[in-house]
Amino acid sequence: MMADSKTILRLLKTARGQLDGILKMVEEDRYCIDISQQLMATEAILNRANKEVLAAHLKHCVQQAASPQERNEKIEEFVQTLGRILK
Amino acid sequence: MMADSKTILRLLKTARGQLDGILKMVEEDRYCIDISQQLMATEAILNRANKEVLAAHLKHCVQQAASPQERNEKIEEFVQTLGRILK
Amino acid sequence: MMADSKTILRLLKTARGQLDGILKMVEEDRYCIDISQQLMATEAILNRANKEVLAAHLKHCVQQAASPQERNEKIEEFVQTLGRILK
Amino acid sequence: MMADSKTILRLLKTARGQLDGILKMVEEDRYCIDISQQLMATEAILNRANKEVLAAHLKHCVQQAASPQERNEKIEEFVQTLGRILK
Repeated sequence: MMADSKTILRLLKTARGQLDGILKMVEEDRYCIDISQQLMATEAILNRANKEVLAAHLKHCVQQAASPQERNEKIEEFVQTLGRILK
Repeated sequence: MMADSKTILRLLKTARGQLDGILKMVEEDRYCIDISQQLMATEAILNRANKEVLAAHLKHCVQQAASPQERNEKIEEFVQTLGRILK
Repeated sequence: MMADSKTILRLLKTARGQLDGILKMVEEDRYCIDISQQLMATEAILNRANKEVLAAHLKHCVQQAASPQERNEKIEEFVQTLGRILK
Repeated sequence: MMADSKTILRLLKTARGQLDGILKMVEEDRYCIDISQQLMATEAILNRANKEVLAAHLKHCVQQAASPQERNEKIEEFVQTLGRILK
């Protein structure tokens, strides 16, 4: 889990740094289109973080489930998350 | 698998029917905002179909993998798909 | 408007062709991950069609509005559509 | 512009607060599915912020353009942004 959480923390800290920059851009009344682009760049980083989080879930919780029942529950839960992503 | 593919086929046929309707709307030069809304409704249906397809994959291929190695490969493959969804 | 609607019709017809292919893939019980990829490719085409539709709206209805009031109404309407895209 | 930027700043600050919470969740090794849900909630807020930024652009820069040429340029620029959102 350690390797995964390092990557995730790095992505989240990058996103937070960008968000601080965007707050400053809004306060300085910078050009809307530039602000919008920075927002989309930040969301792309959060999407990558989300992908890493969900990949870690599949690799750890689903792969290493103690029983088929437990694995089934983990998959069901994951499918619900997938439904929120693909809405 | 039968139950899943019935749902998926039903969603895809609904999407195709909507797409035919949108083609007609464009040919009849209907109002852009109405066309855009129908396009988004169709994409929402395709997203639901995609969720059902991926749920079927997790429930069948991942859950019923013959070995931990095979399960691992299926999960890796799924994670790549997740990366395309969350880009 | 003609040039725009030609592009939009071409994109929609491509999407419909792909959707027919996906229906066949599901009926033939093809591999889930391949079906999912084709679904995402089709959605990407519908997204491009939606972009063209909304660009046409901005270029025609907003740009050529008869009065500032009418332009304001068209922009408000567009902003509501934007809210549905960015939800 | 003031009213718009207040809303945008409020949304961005909320997103930053949530991101700090998510960083803590990852450090505390909290459950992946819960982290993923918080990430999606944060992205939904950034999407709303982006919608507000782009709405402000349309209402100010496009609506109040000094000439049809300037308005045309602003619309072209907006359409490019739309292409990035709908990719």
